Amino acid sequence: MNEAILVNSPTVDAAAHSLFVVNNTWMLVSTVLVFIMHLGFSALEAGFVRTKNTVNILFKNAMIIAIGLLTYAFIGFNLMYPGDASIIDGILGFAGFGIEAPEGDAGLIAYAEGGYSYWTDFIFQGMFAATCATIVSGAVAERMKLGSFLLFATVFVALAYPITGMWKWGGGWLDGLGFYDFAGSTIVHAAGGFAALAAAMLLGPRLGKYTEAGIKPIPGHSMPLAAIGVFLLWFGWFGFNGGSVLSADPGPVSLVFVTTSLAAAAGAVGAFTASYALFKTHDLSMVLNGILGGLVGITAGADLMSPMEAIIIGLIAGVIIPFSVVFFDKIKIDDPVGATSVHLVCGIWGTLAVGLFGDMAGGGQLLNQLIGVAAIGAFSFVFAYALLFLLKKTIGIRVDEKEELAGLDPSEHEMMSYADFMIK
Amino acid sequence: MNEAILVNSPTVDAAAHSLFVVNNTWMLVSTVLVFIMHLGFSALEAGFVRTKNTVNILFKNAMIIAIGLLTYAFIGFNLMYPGDASIIDGILGFAGFGIEAPEGDAGLIAYAEGGYSYWTDFIFQGMFAATCATIVSGAVAERMKLGSFLLFATVFVALAYPITGMWKWGGGWLDGLGFYDFAGSTIVHAAGGFAALAAAMLLGPRLGKYTEAGIKPIPGHSMPLAAIGVFLLWFGWFGFNGGSVLSADPGPVSLVFVTTSLAAAAGAVGAFTASYALFKTHDLSMVLNGILGGLVGITAGADLMSPMEAIIIGLIAGVIIPFSVVFFDKIKIDDPVGATSVHLVCGIWGTLAVGLFGDMAGGGQLLNQLIGVAAIGAFSFVFAYALLFLLKKTIGIRVDEKEELAGLDPSEHEMMSYADFMIK
Amino acid sequence: MNEAILVNSPTVDAAAHSLFVVNNTWMLVSTVLVFIMHLGFSALEAGFVRTKNTVNILFKNAMIIAIGLLTYAFIGFNLMYPGDASIIDGILGFAGFGIEAPEGDAGLIAYAEGGYSYWTDFIFQGMFAATCATIVSGAVAERMKLGSFLLFATVFVALAYPITGMWKWGGGWLDGLGFYDFAGSTIVHAAGGFAALAAAMLLGPRLGKYTEAGIKPIPGHSMPLAAIGVFLLWFGWFGFNGGSVLSADPGPVSLVFVTTSLAAAAGAVGAFTASYALFKTHDLSMVLNGILGGLVGITAGADLMSPMEAIIIGLIAGVIIPFSVVFFDKIKIDDPVGATSVHLVCGIWGTLAVGLFGDMAGGGQLLNQLIGVAAIGAFSFVFAYALLFLLKKTIGIRVDEKEELAGLDPSEHEMMSYADFMIK
Repeated sequence: MNEAILVNSPTVDAAAHSLFVVNNTWMLVSTVLVFIMHLGFSALEAGFVRTKNTVNILFKNAMIIAIGLLTYAFIGFNLMYPGDASIIDGILGFAGFGIEAPEGDAGLIAYAEGGYSYWTDFIFQGMFAATCATIVSGAVAERMKLGSFLLFATVFVALAYPITGMWKWGGGWLDGLGFYDFAGSTIVHAAGGFAALAAAMLLGPRLGKYTEAGIKPIPGHSMPLAAIGVFLLWFGWFGFNGGSVLSADPGPVSLVFVTTSLAAAAGAVGAFTASYALFKTHDLSMVLNGILGGLVGITAGADLMSPMEAIIIGLIAGVIIPFSVVFFDKIKIDDPVGATSVHLVCGIWGTLAVGLFGDMAGGGQLLNQLIGVAAIGAFSFVFAYALLFLLKKTIGIRVDEKEELAGLDPSEHEMMSYADFMIK
Repeated sequence: MNEAILVNSPTVDAAAHSLFVVNNTWMLVSTVLVFIMHLGFSALEAGFVRTKNTVNILFKNAMIIAIGLLTYAFIGFNLMYPGDASIIDGILGFAGFGIEAPEGDAGLIAYAEGGYSYWTDFIFQGMFAATCATIVSGAVAERMKLGSFLLFATVFVALAYPITGMWKWGGGWLDGLGFYDFAGSTIVHAAGGFAALAAAMLLGPRLGKYTEAGIKPIPGHSMPLAAIGVFLLWFGWFGFNGGSVLSADPGPVSLVFVTTSLAAAAGAVGAFTASYALFKTHDLSMVLNGILGGLVGITAGADLMSPMEAIIIGLIAGVIIPFSVVFFDKIKIDDPVGATSVHLVCGIWGTLAVGLFGDMAGGGQLLNQLIGVAAIGAFSFVFAYALLFLLKKTIGIRVDEKEELAGLDPSEHEMMSYADFMIK
Repeated sequence: MNEAILVNSPTVDAAAHSLFVVNNTWMLVSTVLVFIMHLGFSALEAGFVRTKNTVNILFKNAMIIAIGLLTYAFIGFNLMYPGDASIIDGILGFAGFGIEAPEGDAGLIAYAEGGYSYWTDFIFQGMFAATCATIVSGAVAERMKLGSFLLFATVFVALAYPITGMWKWGGGWLDGLGFYDFAGSTIVHAAGGFAALAAAMLLGPRLGKYTEAGIKPIPGHSMPLAAIGVFLLWFGWFGFNGGSVLSADPGPVSLVFVTTSLAAAAGAVGAFTASYALFKTHDLSMVLNGILGGLVGITAGADLMSPMEAIIIGLIAGVIIPFSVVFFDKIKIDDPVGATSVHLVCGIWGTLAVGLFGDMAGGGQLLNQLIGVAAIGAFSFVFAYALLFLLKKTIGIRVDEKEELAGLDPSEHEMMSYADFMIK
């Protein structure tokens, strides 16, 4: 054990060491919570697609977390946190391939004073990285080739996410500018959402979705699965936002718990009300996505808001959801799970809200927030668009019509999600 | 950061601060665990109803957690913990609308010495509040109007739960009397269970449940979903009971883990044995509800019992379950998920068990426990009955026959829970 | 509260106490995580069997956790950690029936210096014990008598698991020899896997599995359920491996998080690649079992490996999975969920890997690892085989043909897992 190296004097240092241990433990608990968000995404996306594409969406989600962690270990972490290893100052840096604790004792040494260990830093950030690609998998569901998706996800999570992440969290130019994004409304959610938009545009809608007769609703196959997904995402968000304090400091962590939960709750109420006003029905999908919208919305400023401000931000995010879903359908961007509405639109909203509410509100801050969204959004969108365009022109990104009609499960996996059941 | 205000001397106070941080962290982890109980309830209740009412039950559960947190922020927390703001001494108090940390530094200050932060206090208690209303949603499943249920749940969780909760946990008259309820066998579970009973009585049974030909079993649509629910509830109960220590103090928290787990395990064995004796079959629903019965039963005295006492309490709770289910069916109280048996009957049993077993056992204590159950039970039952009666006479509480036969999903939500599957 | 007894001087001891509290808290969080692995196993096994046997597998899993905890309290814990109460030195000991904290203050005292409480020790180890029997339940699915299985599981978890566990973790002869098994690749997983193999051999394959026309694939009924199971198992493994550090020491715990996650990720990639090479399809079951194989594989040396070594170990475990599944089918050992491939084969691989990679690698260590696997494997296999043989010759272990064809749910439980759905 290497605890000894932290304890230099028997009084103050023992207490400092104990604080270091609790901070590190909280960051590890947060890591576990962020991990289970991958099950949340899997269940949500699976619930919102049809049975014939369910194995495919589960397969993609299982591979994304694997690919995300491995690429983050090989490249991503050192792209996102390059330290002094700058290539273009504030824009690009790279501290080398692979991960290695900075010094001594088989890597089991303390990282920052009073903070958490190097390995904790890596694994917490690694769990974040994979979520970004997962956002895309929902938007491209039911029609994208598996191989192309996995290639896209690998490159996006290995390069695009860490580069824009570095601009803020790695101490890059957006950080210098004063852009604020506490836990990633833009850096994670809108970045993934912009890539999802690019992918949905390049792929085109599912067969039969937009016809001359109008927009055909394609209901998901399991509302319980979707609900499990949303509850698990909320559950994991306590680590996503709570861990972004980067310590167990009681004041900010507990405030973040309150703002995160109240925003999610208000998101449900907002989506409930707005969708009832629009459609005169109690739409479970809207309420579930309203909760997610509230969570995405509060993420940029979860540590800055009062409870009432959190409620307002979440409520607006929830109201946005049904309007955004209708809007994307109007412009014929087909997104089977509503990922662009939740992650892109509410991610932008939450990022801008930091300029409108809370401790940092102000015109200058609002401008910084706009610049941050625009810069990260433009990079993510263009990167994803170019990469997918390249894949489209080479190996193709969309399955052929026959495979799409049969479903990706038989064509890509030769498996059925529910072998015993009679399917319509 | 406001950690500095806690650190006055560099020696003892640094250690005290570190203890404060770990206590606060444990309470936040407990909060996360109690949160996921809402997914547990959702999955359990969804699994025990028919497919045609599954969207409805998920919708109710998603809205209850939202409503519960928002009303607790606006009213409930300050009704339950009024401090000096007494209206009727020991019976009713109200510290004002909304939540606000008591002093300084944007609310991010420490709350009690060595305890946890104000925000932690709110969010942990807020997660408890919503569970109380959730208990009702199972008992009224498959026949109650959505709007009436949401109105009922809002008022009950905003007013009834915090008022009776204050009697004990807010330092009210039951606390002065010596009534003991560690984590809420009565304050949460029996209170919700009494409201569930009132609701089931006023609503009447589901169509076709009790006929001249006898009692018709109406099996739930998904046993895996029900099992997921029960495991998640047990999982969350580690926070429900473990967090009720209100610190991370190793002795009581770890004892509570042991008593809680052994009572749940014994509840499974008790229900297994009793239901086999009664029905000569291995009934999964009974075993699942037996686990929950054991958990509810140990909750009042989880910190007072030895492992063997916990096993006895859980075993008896498990044995109670099949008898209670049969009893409620005999008197034609239709409770689709067994919520009254689990939460009301086992909640009463667990509360009384504090007078029979463990550190506080004795005739005087037993009397105090009886008074507590009777007082909280009477208030909860009468409050729920009166409120639902009012709703029944105004907007109505039950869907019409045609809607009930078709299911609440098409009539209230225009959605199907499993759109792709062939349903009987 | 008994915190006071730990605090003897106001300076150093306060800090030591605070460290004790955080260590204990982490062990309790790990306990909660290991607990939810039982839902992981339930969901995975349920997903991989047919609807007609789903209630049965859920019933078995619910009872196993109950039986596992109760027998561990009555017998197992004191067999596994007998302390001075030796019967055959290093091989068998027994500290008496029941659990009781070693001294004072209603059992709420501190256990080891700076460690965690007695109750924490019991409950963390108790959660491990039940997992061992759970491994068997998957391999015997769809054809074993419920009563025989429960009897077998009770005796195996009460006697066999703690006896071999004591050889290493209780300070027995394998510990003296230098055998290393950090969190139980052999002590938990291969031990359960050997018992699963014995059971599958004695039971014989399911009707219609191996015919003259070849091997008939019998697909599981719900891929979403299987995926939920695997994600929850990975989630719980953070406690299984992370808690096996037996403290919250930041260095080793965070390294274990990294090695565990990277091995799981590499397991997915290994199984993906190997199963594609073998079958030319993207087999979700293989990827899911590849994740589990990676997790089982890293478990013996999770604290000893560098990230790259963890990736190699996990990758090989993942590659092993499809070959192992094919192998067991070739020799007509029918294992519906692949438990022997995951827990037995990858458990052996992971245990041997401690002699090949990491801090302890070397020929002598490899020999010690071989001896450990052989000894624990032989004992577990022979114990399970003898016990099941006895049951076979007395009450029988296999349901009759008619019951098997109808499914265990109607014959053993008179319940259906999905009452509303049309089943093929």
